[in-house]
Amino acid sequence: MSKPRQTAAAAKDRVSCELSRGLIDWACDHEVETVWDRFEAAQPQCGFGQLGLCCTTCNLGPCRIDPFGAEDQAGVCGATAETITARNLARKSCAGSACHSDHGRHMAHAMLLMAQGEAPSYTVRDPAKLRVVAAEYDVKTEGRDDRQIARDLAEAMLADFGRQDGQARFVARAPAKQQEIWKKLQVTPGGIDRAIVETLARTNMGVETNPEQMLLAALKASLVDGWGGSMIGTEVSDILFGSPHPIRARANLGVLQAKDVNIVLHGHVPILSEVIVDAAQSPDMLALAREVGAEGITIAGICCTANEVLMRRGIPVAGSFLQQELAIATGAVELMVVDVQCIMPSLPRVASCFHTKIVSTDPRAQFPGAVHVELDERQALQIAKRIVKMGIDNFPNRNGHETRM
Amino acid sequence: MSKPRQTAAAAKDRVSCELSRGLIDWACDHEVETVWDRFEAAQPQCGFGQLGLCCTTCNLGPCRIDPFGAEDQAGVCGATAETITARNLARKSCAGSACHSDHGRHMAHAMLLMAQGEAPSYTVRDPAKLRVVAAEYDVKTEGRDDRQIARDLAEAMLADFGRQDGQARFVARAPAKQQEIWKKLQVTPGGIDRAIVETLARTNMGVETNPEQMLLAALKASLVDGWGGSMIGTEVSDILFGSPHPIRARANLGVLQAKDVNIVLHGHVPILSEVIVDAAQSPDMLALAREVGAEGITIAGICCTANEVLMRRGIPVAGSFLQQELAIATGAVELMVVDVQCIMPSLPRVASCFHTKIVSTDPRAQFPGAVHVELDERQALQIAKRIVKMGIDNFPNRNGHETRM
Repeated sequence: MSKPRQTAAAAKDRVSCELSRGLIDWACDHEVETVWDRFEAAQPQCGFGQLGLCCTTCNLGPCRIDPFGAEDQAGVCGATAETITARNLARKSCAGSACHSDHGRHMAHAMLLMAQGEAPSYTVRDPAKLRVVAAEYDVKTEGRDDRQIARDLAEAMLADFGRQDGQARFVARAPAKQQEIWKKLQVTPGGIDRAIVETLARTNMGVETNPEQMLLAALKASLVDGWGGSMIGTEVSDILFGSPHPIRARANLGVLQAKDVNIVLHGHVPILSEVIVDAAQSPDMLALAREVGAEGITIAGICCTANEVLMRRGIPVAGSFLQQELAIATGAVELMVVDVQCIMPSLPRVASCFHTKIVSTDPRAQFPGAVHVELDERQALQIAKRIVKMGIDNFPNRNGHETRM
Repeated sequence: MSKPRQTAAAAKDRVSCELSRGLIDWACDHEVETVWDRFEAAQPQCGFGQLGLCCTTCNLGPCRIDPFGAEDQAGVCGATAETITARNLARKSCAGSACHSDHGRHMAHAMLLMAQGEAPSYTVRDPAKLRVVAAEYDVKTEGRDDRQIARDLAEAMLADFGRQDGQARFVARAPAKQQEIWKKLQVTPGGIDRAIVETLARTNMGVETNPEQMLLAALKASLVDGWGGSMIGTEVSDILFGSPHPIRARANLGVLQAKDVNIVLHGHVPILSEVIVDAAQSPDMLALAREVGAEGITIAGICCTANEVLMRRGIPVAGSFLQQELAIATGAVELMVVDVQCIMPSLPRVASCFHTKIVSTDPRAQFPGAVHVELDERQALQIAKRIVKMGIDNFPNRNGHETRM
């Protein structure tokens, strides 16, 4: 069992949610370390880093600019505070943009597999939207079936990632005035991968030193995500899983059910979460759950993937990013299945204090201490069932233990 | 005039080169700040950063792992020392790979412009190599002229940057056994931009947490440069500017000539340096130099671009990365022209102590205090002559001042 490193602040100073406060108190009493403990142990955090005034871009450093020091300070290479902070921000912009855009690429690739008949667990659930988006990409729709359209559209979207010139297709959606401003500033979203790589290239020592130009480059790398990668991700999600509409649903840790097998979905990509929901709602899995003494299977979401299955399927939200460890601390979670982004590396450590299993599924994100069951879109439902079954099989290990929701 | 911030270490403790020592002493006596002064002012450098144990990947941090502390330390998200150092190394690998690969893209793009007849200052100087490389890319060579071949080759190379699947063409050059190892480790170089973006995506908080997988991803992002971007850059350089052969040349700061207009080339991309050499050797520029009282024009290189014009044209090397400020401190440099990479942001500050002009030429790299004259491949020789003329016009401003070589 892991151990909070210092006397914790009162739970009431940590969160406003009553249910979470109770769990934080319980975790402290039982020496289960959570993000708040680590945050307090990390104090004081480095002020140079917080201000972006620390530079590790090259190995002449690390260099630091004293915010209270002389005005003419510079790093070893000669970079000023303005250059250093701009480079740091640009590098972070590239990393964030890369990650969200990669999600979009993953979605487009899944649509391609579906269209080629290689991913039978997926289909087109919003054919009207498929046609609208296809038209934007100049993909012929008349007299063609969903799959034919989806294949050409997926290929055209993937080409937006690799393009070496021209602009990203969705740029045309922006108001004309906005497009003019982008053009003037030379930040019009073009090839998604190229824009990120070029901006990243400029963050190196001895390349872009003008802070204004560096910030414009950061903007370019960011816009190519917003009007490229992320927008592709959103549109493909709607095409494959249906466009959301207003629904009523429940939220917070209380959605976990003491008498059910509880499986928490955590991460970002609906390719995983949608198929886990399908698997958990299948009669064979429900029958298996009853065999081990559970009343049913509850699927609940954490973080962004929660929103994907909430808005389309009404799946309840167990909590936010900060509550991912607390969900496990309820003692009621048989299995938490994760893909990419915002998965705290601490999860296997917290889970080791309980019967909970952490299952990672994406080749891009493995976690020491987790079980890795890779999701292959070609056999998605089978793999999802295998994961759900792992959760069901784990239900008897909870027996006799109290749950806290 | 800028000012060294503290008592400098003796020049003999800074470098082994006698000539550089003299210049460092002179700079110290005259309060001209150089990289050694800034390095000493930066001491002690942050030990966490030096060990890679500082994490600013997300804004829960900055987090630091105490190398003398408990074994179970983690950042706020739960990342261990192993995850943090691996992520930091991977992010640096992506940045470096992006920068060198972008150089390769620039070269391929210049070859495309040349082949389309849009960049008359460039030509194919090694037609034999063009044909060898074209054959590797399955570009038809029989019965076709240099430009036709070069155009198809440039397009095929640019496609290697944007490819979303398959492997980079030059992978076939690697020994079969090496290719097998890459395949087994899933690090075979594929699309250049994609590999960098994907690895960068994995460095984010909550994505790749397994340090071994993270290091393999760093390797993938690096290999795609070595067998992709950089290799393309090298091959295109040979095709456009000739394959180098052993020659005899001179090196160190003494190559600068007191009675000549001295122009120093600094940076990385031969697209700039080759055409500056052409311009400086043209009769009209030499005549202009004589008009202002100089005996001739000396071109000398600093850093990597020095090597490009040394090995192909016998242009002398004025110095290494560390000598870029000292070259200016000789008092003999009329103009230093830079493109990308390794350009110390301090150069305009050092130059402000002398008559030297710093001219930046690449849209990716501007330097506050430098004059920006953008190199457009379409009018390269004209722009190069304009830059050389700026150097010539600056020669009279040196009059009466001592030079130190």
